[in-house]
Amino acid sequence: MALLAAHLPAQARIWDSVPDEQLQALQLSREASPKELFEALSKRYKAELNKGKLARYWEPIPMDMYLAPSLFYKPPDVNIDVTREQCVSCHTSVTHGWVKSWEKSVHANLDAIRQLPASDVRAYKKDIIAEVEDNLRGQGLLAKTEPLKEVQCTDCHMGIGAKGGNHVKDLRMPDRAVCGSCHVRQFAEAESERDTLVWPQKQWDQGHPSHTVDYRANVETATWAVLMNEGKGPVAASCTMCHTNQTKCDNCHTRHEFSTVESRKPEACATCHNGVDHNEFEQYMYSKHGTAYQTLGNQWDWNIRLADQLGHKNGATAPTCQTCHFEYKGQYSHNVVRKVRWGFLPFKSIADNLEHPWFKERKDAWAATCSQCHAPRFAQTYLTMMDDGIKLGTGLVEQSRKVMQKLYDDKLLVGQKTNRTPLRAPEKDEPGGFSSLFFATNNQTTVADRTFAEMWEQHVARYMKGLEHVNPGGWTYSHGWSDLIKDQTIINEQDTVLRENARMEQRLRKLESGRAKTSFLNRSPDDGPQSVLAAVTDDPLTSSLALSLLGGTLVVGGASTVRRRRRLPGRQASDATTLPERETR
Amino acid sequence: MALLAAHLPAQARIWDSVPDEQLQALQLSREASPKELFEALSKRYKAELNKGKLARYWEPIPMDMYLAPSLFYKPPDVNIDVTREQCVSCHTSVTHGWVKSWEKSVHANLDAIRQLPASDVRAYKKDIIAEVEDNLRGQGLLAKTEPLKEVQCTDCHMGIGAKGGNHVKDLRMPDRAVCGSCHVRQFAEAESERDTLVWPQKQWDQGHPSHTVDYRANVETATWAVLMNEGKGPVAASCTMCHTNQTKCDNCHTRHEFSTVESRKPEACATCHNGVDHNEFEQYMYSKHGTAYQTLGNQWDWNIRLADQLGHKNGATAPTCQTCHFEYKGQYSHNVVRKVRWGFLPFKSIADNLEHPWFKERKDAWAATCSQCHAPRFAQTYLTMMDDGIKLGTGLVEQSRKVMQKLYDDKLLVGQKTNRTPLRAPEKDEPGGFSSLFFATNNQTTVADRTFAEMWEQHVARYMKGLEHVNPGGWTYSHGWSDLIKDQTIINEQDTVLRENARMEQRLRKLESGRAKTSFLNRSPDDGPQSVLAAVTDDPLTSSLALSLLGGTLVVGGASTVRRRRRLPGRQASDATTLPERETR
Amino acid sequence: MALLAAHLPAQARIWDSVPDEQLQALQLSREASPKELFEALSKRYKAELNKGKLARYWEPIPMDMYLAPSLFYKPPDVNIDVTREQCVSCHTSVTHGWVKSWEKSVHANLDAIRQLPASDVRAYKKDIIAEVEDNLRGQGLLAKTEPLKEVQCTDCHMGIGAKGGNHVKDLRMPDRAVCGSCHVRQFAEAESERDTLVWPQKQWDQGHPSHTVDYRANVETATWAVLMNEGKGPVAASCTMCHTNQTKCDNCHTRHEFSTVESRKPEACATCHNGVDHNEFEQYMYSKHGTAYQTLGNQWDWNIRLADQLGHKNGATAPTCQTCHFEYKGQYSHNVVRKVRWGFLPFKSIADNLEHPWFKERKDAWAATCSQCHAPRFAQTYLTMMDDGIKLGTGLVEQSRKVMQKLYDDKLLVGQKTNRTPLRAPEKDEPGGFSSLFFATNNQTTVADRTFAEMWEQHVARYMKGLEHVNPGGWTYSHGWSDLIKDQTIINEQDTVLRENARMEQRLRKLESGRAKTSFLNRSPDDGPQSVLAAVTDDPLTSSLALSLLGGTLVVGGASTVRRRRRLPGRQASDATTLPERETR
Repeated sequence: MALLAAHLPAQARIWDSVPDEQLQALQLSREASPKELFEALSKRYKAELNKGKLARYWEPIPMDMYLAPSLFYKPPDVNIDVTREQCVSCHTSVTHGWVKSWEKSVHANLDAIRQLPASDVRAYKKDIIAEVEDNLRGQGLLAKTEPLKEVQCTDCHMGIGAKGGNHVKDLRMPDRAVCGSCHVRQFAEAESERDTLVWPQKQWDQGHPSHTVDYRANVETATWAVLMNEGKGPVAASCTMCHTNQTKCDNCHTRHEFSTVESRKPEACATCHNGVDHNEFEQYMYSKHGTAYQTLGNQWDWNIRLADQLGHKNGATAPTCQTCHFEYKGQYSHNVVRKVRWGFLPFKSIADNLEHPWFKERKDAWAATCSQCHAPRFAQTYLTMMDDGIKLGTGLVEQSRKVMQKLYDDKLLVGQKTNRTPLRAPEKDEPGGFSSLFFATNNQTTVADRTFAEMWEQHVARYMKGLEHVNPGGWTYSHGWSDLIKDQTIINEQDTVLRENARMEQRLRKLESGRAKTSFLNRSPDDGPQSVLAAVTDDPLTSSLALSLLGGTLVVGGASTVRRRRRLPGRQASDATTLPERETR
Repeated sequence: MALLAAHLPAQARIWDSVPDEQLQALQLSREASPKELFEALSKRYKAELNKGKLARYWEPIPMDMYLAPSLFYKPPDVNIDVTREQCVSCHTSVTHGWVKSWEKSVHANLDAIRQLPASDVRAYKKDIIAEVEDNLRGQGLLAKTEPLKEVQCTDCHMGIGAKGGNHVKDLRMPDRAVCGSCHVRQFAEAESERDTLVWPQKQWDQGHPSHTVDYRANVETATWAVLMNEGKGPVAASCTMCHTNQTKCDNCHTRHEFSTVESRKPEACATCHNGVDHNEFEQYMYSKHGTAYQTLGNQWDWNIRLADQLGHKNGATAPTCQTCHFEYKGQYSHNVVRKVRWGFLPFKSIADNLEHPWFKERKDAWAATCSQCHAPRFAQTYLTMMDDGIKLGTGLVEQSRKVMQKLYDDKLLVGQKTNRTPLRAPEKDEPGGFSSLFFATNNQTTVADRTFAEMWEQHVARYMKGLEHVNPGGWTYSHGWSDLIKDQTIINEQDTVLRENARMEQRLRKLESGRAKTSFLNRSPDDGPQSVLAAVTDDPLTSSLALSLLGGTLVVGGASTVRRRRRLPGRQASDATTLPERETR
Repeated sequence: MALLAAHLPAQARIWDSVPDEQLQALQLSREASPKELFEALSKRYKAELNKGKLARYWEPIPMDMYLAPSLFYKPPDVNIDVTREQCVSCHTSVTHGWVKSWEKSVHANLDAIRQLPASDVRAYKKDIIAEVEDNLRGQGLLAKTEPLKEVQCTDCHMGIGAKGGNHVKDLRMPDRAVCGSCHVRQFAEAESERDTLVWPQKQWDQGHPSHTVDYRANVETATWAVLMNEGKGPVAASCTMCHTNQTKCDNCHTRHEFSTVESRKPEACATCHNGVDHNEFEQYMYSKHGTAYQTLGNQWDWNIRLADQLGHKNGATAPTCQTCHFEYKGQYSHNVVRKVRWGFLPFKSIADNLEHPWFKERKDAWAATCSQCHAPRFAQTYLTMMDDGIKLGTGLVEQSRKVMQKLYDDKLLVGQKTNRTPLRAPEKDEPGGFSSLFFATNNQTTVADRTFAEMWEQHVARYMKGLEHVNPGGWTYSHGWSDLIKDQTIINEQDTVLRENARMEQRLRKLESGRAKTSFLNRSPDDGPQSVLAAVTDDPLTSSLALSLLGGTLVVGGASTVRRRRRLPGRQASDATTLPERETR
């Protein structure tokens, strides 16, 4: 049962590509109608799309009306009544780019599609049109005998089949549910990401990290909420821009052409999946897979539907993002996370549980995917090496986490006692927290914090992504391991320097109190930093001065807790990597 | 009136795409002839193309003869007389690549163009040929009734229409004026950048930053001049390589094919517009605009002239660099800076003046550009958010500038009193100056200087470019804000460490002078660093030692002045961000 | 005599593209038969392909069986006897991607190639088929009158011409010699890299750095061996992934399509030639050459054979990696290093010897390459500037090397006396060694080491590559020089800070021993750090504390030796940059 499956009459069972988990969650049987499915999906979708748990901390900026239209969109003050036909004629002059893109779309050319010969690789779209017609008829939006003539401005922006409307009163920006009214199956598949991603050790909340909850994940991130709260909405908007798959469909299917060719190419994913942590795009492009795509892709027929691309004689001879990630046990759907194992970050709680059946089954599913072009043993061998490699990277992070937490607990961070400006709620202080990447008032963030934040949030992710996407230089040499080692170098160096500096301060203090000769020279080398620190922290004046010796890119403060649950919503507190809260906090 | 407008007879008015500002500057009326326009342009062009204000500091390296041929080119010692025909036949064997590229050019195929049916998207080139013929006739270079047969080696490299010449005596490398002899309109449009870019608060000198003054901007940069002066010409050549739009046309129109298809694609801009600061290309490629270009661009007909690309049914469905930046109020021309508002760097003096009509009008012009494909309100909303965002970034830079300047004024930079080797003239010392990116003899540049230089010159620029080109991860997450915060982290940490270290030195000094017990323990916590520093600087020996405590990536020295005018020629001293010179200097 | 030369009967002389140096090394005359050539090559190839000098330190991980199949491959436990035909039919269902790629290959379509008209640009492949048939007949693998019907799974994976075999017993993964059985000439050309690259001052071992020895170069790198030895095989695999040109041919010719179109495009090189040091791909893409490729390359006919691409009217109008690097004096071959001068890193021993005829001849060969499209004087001028530029970069590295070595010799590295965990054999300690990029246990690597390692191994290489590939921003502004200056900034700053800190420790020690007033105040400013250090190192307790003052990103320890020979196998000890071993070591 492929992504774009053969046309099924409306009275049939719900499509196989809709997972059981979703039907259960929606309390539907597979015998339900598309209408019932759509209504259940739509209801849940709308209930979940809101400002989230941190709502009281932020207000939208004007741009947000376009990013989360269901929540914030207000039509412009153009108080005119318009007919279906007037939209196009007027906007041809006002915003001709829209109209031109739409004119190229299937929406504007349904009959042209209907007339394609069966031999045309786009002929499968005829079944999709029929499926959409069934969906609409089931919802009473299309007469039984009436074919769908075209999909036009008013259908999406006012109401399906609307003859016209008032430009102020009736205008809407489509959300997933609007697209989903016609494309029920795709809506269901995409929304099923929240149903199938149930982490066995609660490494993340259900459905996280996935596209279908990405808006909530963003607005429930403390760092994001503080940016908004502090009047830094334009900064926060950078995050929001990508975290809008939950709110609409055009992150992948660019309006108004909604080209399937576009959405099948790796660059369609690249706008979001690039950069300092989730740089899947760059990793792919430097892999052999990417090489084939870049050198031979212009010979591949991109109108072939995704499910057939690797099989069709004119199709791809190497995978794209889409051919691997949309596939699950031979079936293609819009649930992109059914094989997810490591997710966004290689948590220790994942590394420690890879032998659990949940992870093993997904590994086997991946091996099956790779085995379309590689020997099954080759696939398993690579995947195992990848896992082992990721675990080594996670090990480096955990080592540095301990160093950071100890320094933090010992209050050795630069300015920790004097100049570490508290973060605004709902952010909380922690060593190397996610906020270290976005705030640095006074010594709120030290170089040590920043280094560790980059280590656990960016470099280890990039290391993992390199291994996952088979970019030879991507996980050790150019990035990844080499970056992690640099982080470790800085953190270990600071650990040495800061503790030695504390001793130095102690020596000075003793000299100043006249005890230098008698006590210091008799001090045992075994006394260690603990006793020194104890002494230092006795004295509020000198203890702040002690820190003054901490030079350079100082790495101080303990980082163990790193309560990523606050940072990355959807992450469960029960994550095995989370250390207990420090008692002194 | 499009970039490549309908053919106008020579006696007509000067083309509308030539701005009034330019005609005024050249003291021409719009009734002037192309010949008069060319002569006025050419005269001014030649007068402005020279070694610049820092001429006495540098001599060209051999490579410069190819980069600024009008100034430095000497023909090779091949003393032969050659005919027009011999060029091609000989160079077909000597440098066949040239000849082959030329064979593909319009220059070698004028008749083929003339025979194109009107339906061919390249038919507009017929008008251009006629326009060129008019221009040549006006200059007496083509007989009234004679058609232009071809454009061949000798035309550009010896003299338009030349039958041949001596290879040593007559050979020339074309500059903008040579190309402009035929392409008068394009020459005028391009040269008009110096006329239309008149900053209302003199944030930059007139015409800066723009392509038409880029050679002077480079050679009048103190850092560049010092590199040349120190025998580092090959290093400086990296700058020169791009700063040659003033000297010739082939930075965008690669010789000898001069393909318009090439110059319409984003990669044509990428050679210069990438990298650590002006990374427009990367930002674009990760935007939705770039996604459409990369996934669907192969379906667009690139022979469609620029002015029609967004409108033509076979044209682009997303903008390129060219469709936005060559457009101004619906007209396309080679003046690429008519909508420039923020320019190259987001100066405070720009941020503070955005309500000035000059900036508001340009913002409206941008909104009109975006509104070809987006709702006008959407465009305004985005542009306003962009402005607000850039201002936030500028704010971070100004905060750190103050910290740097104070450290510099307090002489706390590592080695500032002992080992800060003076820069060679015409460079001058300042905290975090542009030179910090290119020189580091002894402690001439400290890590603090370098950090601040990257902050104001690179990271804030990249932050701005991300916002401007709508690359979601580009301004906050992967680069931009996150980089600025890292800079701030380092600078703030150094501020703390350096001042604490100064206190430590003071304590040591007191101990050494036997006053430790009596004075230190009685010191008030309110004495503050000032008094400590005062004491420290009393003593030349210990004050240098005091600095010895500054560990690691020390951030010291004040950076407020940052006289970018020296660094970035064309920048006015009246920039509101420029602090007064330190008195002690 | 081009890459894919006209068909020569088997009894003819060895192809001209096989260099004399290789025939001499193999003790063959040019009158030898392809069979004799193949056998000699094959014998040497197999002898050289082994675990290398560090074999005792490492064992392969499972993945290695695919990376170095000749050494480690074991067929999967599928004990079935299969016929030639069964391979395809079975694998069409098991791993259909393989089969589909093969179906697109020339291997599966020999007759289609044979039927191409002479006018088809692929017609040259007919000669290659005939050449392969001759080779096979010479080896007794094809009957005199029998044409080669097809190249199928069993030919490569069991034995040329094999009718079938046992899936466990007979399966093999092809190495270079398997491909070379048919493609004798290409095998010889590729293998000749070890014969022609003979450095006159022994800057590298013979044949290094080149593709044909790249596996040995990797496994003989101490850092790699330690990673393997420490159970970090998946990390080390990142290196191995690219270092497998010695073991097989599919790094460039992706299995199983073996598309020549793919291997002619720059992206084919990019998988390996990108990143932190050898970033040739990025440099090329931002050059004018890359611009032409990216904007016009889709108009070039990529089926034209490499040797004709620049000459053919439908061929390239700009160079690719391949057109320049596969060419040598007008001839194209698989020996990619015949014009190599600077190689992988700009050693001082190269910079100092550029006037040697070996280097001058290669420079002239490069000038001839460039002169296909550029004036010969232009080419020489650029190449000279490039050389001069690289020398300037090398100068910066050598300056910092001295600073590092001195600090190391003075034992001033953070934790150098207490916490610098020895590296596991065969690695040895040195300041800023290659290992600094991969290991950082305790203070095994300091920030100073890391900085210098990046400087000599990455930044100067990238600087050089920028100059070599004419990427304007690539060698000074965005990367290269600017990065080197940053490294120098850090290292110089640490030099100052560490030495000042040593004085501070001395002052403290004097105070503690009661000698402060009497001795310190009388100390001469000329005593210098040497005397202080002498004093410091007298006292084991305080000397460790002295280091405690070294703050931040400390740069300590001497780096002069930097025995790259251990790091980069193939590098000769006689390299002029190598300082004598420190006596105290």
